[in-house]
Amino acid sequence: MDTGQLELRSAVAWRDGRLEAIDQTLLPERLVVLELRTVAEVVDALRRLAIRGAPAIGVAAAFAVVLGLDERRPSSAEQATAALDEIAAELEAARPTAVNLSWAVRRVAAAARGDAARGGEAARAGDAAGARDAGDPAQVRRRALEEAERVLEEDRASCRRMAEFGRTELTGRRRLLTHCNTGRLATAGLGTALGVVYAMAAAGEPVQVLASETRPLLQGARLTAWELLDAGIPVTVLAEGAAGAAMARGMVEAVLVGCDRVARNGDTANKIGTYGLSVLARSHGIPFYVVGPLSSFDPQAADGDRIVIEERSADELRGLAGVRVAPAAAHAWNPAFDVTPAELVSGFITDAGVLRPPFAESIARVLGASARPG
Amino acid sequence: MDTGQLELRSAVAWRDGRLEAIDQTLLPERLVVLELRTVAEVVDALRRLAIRGAPAIGVAAAFAVVLGLDERRPSSAEQATAALDEIAAELEAARPTAVNLSWAVRRVAAAARGDAARGGEAARAGDAAGARDAGDPAQVRRRALEEAERVLEEDRASCRRMAEFGRTELTGRRRLLTHCNTGRLATAGLGTALGVVYAMAAAGEPVQVLASETRPLLQGARLTAWELLDAGIPVTVLAEGAAGAAMARGMVEAVLVGCDRVARNGDTANKIGTYGLSVLARSHGIPFYVVGPLSSFDPQAADGDRIVIEERSADELRGLAGVRVAPAAAHAWNPAFDVTPAELVSGFITDAGVLRPPFAESIARVLGASARPG
Repeated sequence: MDTGQLELRSAVAWRDGRLEAIDQTLLPERLVVLELRTVAEVVDALRRLAIRGAPAIGVAAAFAVVLGLDERRPSSAEQATAALDEIAAELEAARPTAVNLSWAVRRVAAAARGDAARGGEAARAGDAAGARDAGDPAQVRRRALEEAERVLEEDRASCRRMAEFGRTELTGRRRLLTHCNTGRLATAGLGTALGVVYAMAAAGEPVQVLASETRPLLQGARLTAWELLDAGIPVTVLAEGAAGAAMARGMVEAVLVGCDRVARNGDTANKIGTYGLSVLARSHGIPFYVVGPLSSFDPQAADGDRIVIEERSADELRGLAGVRVAPAAAHAWNPAFDVTPAELVSGFITDAGVLRPPFAESIARVLGASARPG
Repeated sequence: MDTGQLELRSAVAWRDGRLEAIDQTLLPERLVVLELRTVAEVVDALRRLAIRGAPAIGVAAAFAVVLGLDERRPSSAEQATAALDEIAAELEAARPTAVNLSWAVRRVAAAARGDAARGGEAARAGDAAGARDAGDPAQVRRRALEEAERVLEEDRASCRRMAEFGRTELTGRRRLLTHCNTGRLATAGLGTALGVVYAMAAAGEPVQVLASETRPLLQGARLTAWELLDAGIPVTVLAEGAAGAAMARGMVEAVLVGCDRVARNGDTANKIGTYGLSVLARSHGIPFYVVGPLSSFDPQAADGDRIVIEERSADELRGLAGVRVAPAAAHAWNPAFDVTPAELVSGFITDAGVLRPPFAESIARVLGASARPG
């Protein structure tokens, strides 16, 4: 596979000492690439969701540590090390519940310190002196940048592996329905479910995507449609209510979704609406795939009942882009996620291969074999 | 049942020689009651969807015939009869595909002429001279008004019968999920599916409604939420994608929807998204009821494959109240309706009673027994 030939812009990238990020709040109306030079600018972009998607958030935060060192220009390794704590605290406060954010920041800060035990890959990779001596400030900055680049490259590599496993699995199925946004706007690479689509397109398969618009925040209509159009891949937006009619008319050969968290038995929490699509897919005999890295599998959760579902503001349903669409006094129920029971999943396309039922066994096998971050 | 005690404002009403109509384009932000005095004003209200819902459209058009006579002040019965043709043509052009509109206009015009063969109820009701002699202009106007009042009262009576049959059927089921708007904003009475809700509330049952917002035009969020709140009935709006999660959590004891057209075998065309709700309801063992008058049953359609599904503009999905929510270049698939197969319907709550499976038999029985308009 050579998805490089698609020449696609990533949600986040490091260039000439700056973090570049697509401002996702302006899509699909305008494509604006932010050039972020300070920690405060990155924090602002994270807070207002200009940068979103757990992996993309992690990568942005990783490079923001380097920006923080560049801002402070420490004159000694001790100053640099002290600065790392301030930078990490500032970044972690941007979105306190984003696990990838704090994980990436801590990993980069630890590597910058030369702390093999905590962050460690820089030290393990041969910078053995770093484990005992922080060296000069330039060394601290170099280790931070190398670790941030590793975070980014690991995400990209994970996306590439999922994409390739998925492309092989889906050969011959060209009309795919997806939900929410799981592509290059959500990761530093080509995405999870949409990464599979990019790989199929790169391999010359005439893939077509039905993108459910995904209320309330419309990531399907706003982001998935934009990034596939931008890549020249045919995409058709539909209301979530139209998914059943599309399946009944034979317009869907497989459903591909991402995942926010997968329990040990295969029960899968993902964007609200995923569960309904899985029930419809089953009733039409259409395969339903969940695409996500092993880092999305939670060994602490025995099943879906153990996954806490965030409920978001009713205002997301009562309004849309400043327009009131329901009475201000109306109650609204706005769960961010739902749980798809494992028995409705045909397979998990992961960065360690395709997992098949019985999932309790296939998941245990790959989790046992993997050394996972955070 | 005494739903009168709810003291609810209807979508359309005749008062002091004027047609009053709630401007549904301004809901839920503002409740504005239009006072329509001319045919042109009614045509404008119909065209811009200030008045919507097939039965409400029919009632508005029926009274508009009277407004047209009042505008023209004919000095003879011949002038009045000639005016009826002009008025009918002007009204029927407002929304050419609305069956209820042309049916109601022709019925009122025929009655006004005293034409027993064509419109007939006025003549059958005893105005026998009218069948041969149009009389004076005041008689023409009186017959038009009486027929329009009959159209309205028949719609209200049909709603009352459905509401009462539904209330009895649903006794004990208090948490109801509905779709689109099927209430007093869509009819001259209390509605179809929502009419059942009003009857339950009037009978003192602590009914609670989950209203799916119903993309793309959001009739659930905008209209159903407004009219139930206005009536003091608890309502919670949810995205269509959240219906599965609601059912999985035990938040739904029955699903009630309206219908645009029912085939002889019970296959049901209704607002897009209905089919998905029916599949989810079946998979959770939740009863799924279709509520509609016998006039919605189409004896010409053997099954759902015979029902043509209107596809509406992609712009309804790409934008909302002037806000772009998908790329302008994105394709969008926007069917207005889907077809729920008869086997997913638990029962039809009609103005002739509750029809139960096998529907081919129960529908044939009531259709054979009824003398239906249009």
